[in-house]
Amino acid sequence: MGIVMDIAPSPLASPFPDMPPVEGVTLRVARAGYKDWGRCDLTFVELTEGTAVAGVFTKNVCCSSEVELGREQVKAGKARALVVNAGNSNAFTGYRGREAVEQIMDQVAAHLGCAPEAVFVSSTGVIGVPLPKDKAKAGVDAALAAQPCNWRDATDTIGTTDTFAKGAMATAIVDGKTVTLCGIIKGSGMIAPDMATMLGYIFTDAAVEPAFLQACLSAANLATFSCITVDSDTSTSDTVLAFATGKAGNTPLTGFDSAGADAFAAALTDVCRQLAQLVVRDGEGAQKFITVRVTGAASDDSARRVGLAIANSPLVKTAIAGEDANWGRVVMAVGKAGEPADRDTLSIAFGGHWAARNGLPVADYDEEPVAEHLKGQDIDVAVDLGLGDGQATVWTCDLTHGYISINADYRS
Amino acid sequence: MGIVMDIAPSPLASPFPDMPPVEGVTLRVARAGYKDWGRCDLTFVELTEGTAVAGVFTKNVCCSSEVELGREQVKAGKARALVVNAGNSNAFTGYRGREAVEQIMDQVAAHLGCAPEAVFVSSTGVIGVPLPKDKAKAGVDAALAAQPCNWRDATDTIGTTDTFAKGAMATAIVDGKTVTLCGIIKGSGMIAPDMATMLGYIFTDAAVEPAFLQACLSAANLATFSCITVDSDTSTSDTVLAFATGKAGNTPLTGFDSAGADAFAAALTDVCRQLAQLVVRDGEGAQKFITVRVTGAASDDSARRVGLAIANSPLVKTAIAGEDANWGRVVMAVGKAGEPADRDTLSIAFGGHWAARNGLPVADYDEEPVAEHLKGQDIDVAVDLGLGDGQATVWTCDLTHGYISINADYRS
Repeated sequence: MGIVMDIAPSPLASPFPDMPPVEGVTLRVARAGYKDWGRCDLTFVELTEGTAVAGVFTKNVCCSSEVELGREQVKAGKARALVVNAGNSNAFTGYRGREAVEQIMDQVAAHLGCAPEAVFVSSTGVIGVPLPKDKAKAGVDAALAAQPCNWRDATDTIGTTDTFAKGAMATAIVDGKTVTLCGIIKGSGMIAPDMATMLGYIFTDAAVEPAFLQACLSAANLATFSCITVDSDTSTSDTVLAFATGKAGNTPLTGFDSAGADAFAAALTDVCRQLAQLVVRDGEGAQKFITVRVTGAASDDSARRVGLAIANSPLVKTAIAGEDANWGRVVMAVGKAGEPADRDTLSIAFGGHWAARNGLPVADYDEEPVAEHLKGQDIDVAVDLGLGDGQATVWTCDLTHGYISINADYRS
Repeated sequence: MGIVMDIAPSPLASPFPDMPPVEGVTLRVARAGYKDWGRCDLTFVELTEGTAVAGVFTKNVCCSSEVELGREQVKAGKARALVVNAGNSNAFTGYRGREAVEQIMDQVAAHLGCAPEAVFVSSTGVIGVPLPKDKAKAGVDAALAAQPCNWRDATDTIGTTDTFAKGAMATAIVDGKTVTLCGIIKGSGMIAPDMATMLGYIFTDAAVEPAFLQACLSAANLATFSCITVDSDTSTSDTVLAFATGKAGNTPLTGFDSAGADAFAAALTDVCRQLAQLVVRDGEGAQKFITVRVTGAASDDSARRVGLAIANSPLVKTAIAGEDANWGRVVMAVGKAGEPADRDTLSIAFGGHWAARNGLPVADYDEEPVAEHLKGQDIDVAVDLGLGDGQATVWTCDLTHGYISINADYRS
């Protein structure tokens, strides 16, 4: 079992980390056969009673039933199970798609003796084909009867076009207890809506009140998942859920004044950042991992939008693919962002070497070290707007022939 | 003389039309030698006294001095000359770039005996290198002494990475007189800021008051140049200017209640639409010309933004490059536009064949004729949002390996 796409792993791939079990979380996988493949494609995660949940979801208005339901479900803050279907996104499938999700929720709820609303469902894969209810039912039955598995098996099972399995972990000391956070994610290309698309799950044994878990996840999302882009396209299914089982035994975290709350929030953000960067590292056709740091902006939000304008610019991304320190394209991208910027205070650097300062090319600019930097796999672009204190970092990958091959040759 | 790029013309190229002279407009070209090339690279257009001018300019805040000055100059509404430099965009060059533009304005003004503010200057080419004043001066001197030339010569001279020369014309009956409108444009890829970028000029012998000329041009721009995209990137130099010499002898048009005003406005929009579409037809790497029609939107503006979200989506553009009727990607692009849309009233067609209706795949959808349509060069995508009466049409091209080759292999 594993990621079954018969394409080579991304040159930017990272090895799957050694992640310990999280108490209160039981993983199982099964084969529902959503596609004609031999691999497992249904993941069932059982969560101990009292598990808190928080979520962030795609802003795409043509979202799937799973996303519509999930948005409502997180408001109650409690979860007993997660089911992830791979191979069919169930997006744009109307009432029939919704019925399939509700069937899964009912089936799992009956087995666990919980409310259907405590069962979260995600689906990823082709758009426009209702999730087949018979396959879903048999798949869930098989998963309920399966032996527990490890993180790697579950990560492989949620994957679709991913070229490598993506996981991340962190620990924190909260109220004298060591709590563990383990996260898994699928996504390759931000975002390929035919294999729709980024699904991320973070599990922790920390005890956290749902509202505070949501606050931590929303803040982490803004600095991590909201700061990555592969191709500017936004999936109809993007979902990140965080589950906290409470088994670590700490006094439940209720707000930032709780003991250890800062450490927990930092660890959650750390896991989210690792997962987000792994998605970029599996960006379709990616040959280079690009970090864009924006400083001197009118605000942090403004800095992030400028960073994303740069990271989404096809001309910037192709220049870096071509190992060309083309700062003129960065100027263009800053200017089109629609954010406060002044040409005459704008400075741009590659790999720490300033090419333009305060609106003018640097007089003694030495292209040699910059050219050397651009030959590497990890590219740093720094932009200082010279206006204020706002800053942000965003991550993306280059735009290559590989992206065209993957997306122009793929048939729906 | 001609477009000197040694690359094959776009497969979507159109032949240069047979365009008559416009009375009151005299074209001349010369070689300033902004690059080490044998071709002419400076265009000088003399306009008869009393010529009205209107303009639309890039919204990129990192714009060139030419754009900054031009925005101010059009407010006076009068023009005597236009100078276009090719090979150097003079963008991001600070006060030295501005001095070069002012030198050209002064030089031409002294020759014509007019105010410097009546001399419009555009530059296109590499960013970050101040326009060399000595070459500009010698080039303008040579142009002032040159024999008049025709539209084709002038069009070739303003071009940079264009693979074919782009012109368009129309006539209208105004106040019993036949007026002529001739337009030329350069741009290949919307927008390649290193060869920054789209410059368009429309000349007419109609008599039009400047304020009404501006109103007509602004309206035409919204339905034409604002409705094209190649790669979502926005140039630092984009400029479209309209000049009206008044030599046709009609009673000057002052508003839409003037006799013939509607005919003039329609002809101007027609020329702008032709020019805009020619730029898309020369889109970097373009193999297919794509028309996206959006209906049923909350407003026309909303329809245009939805259309541009589709036309800018790398996943939609690569799908069409791959001749794949991938309507799921269109759903995604509609959903990410941030405009009013409802998944359950959304319909999508390729080449007039509906693939999805009211939020569901069409039951008896026949892929055969759609596949046939997608093999052609002209692709139609129709989206009905089912919400209101807003509509818009936008134009783009596919995203191919050619785009990557041109932009990743280009060195600044």
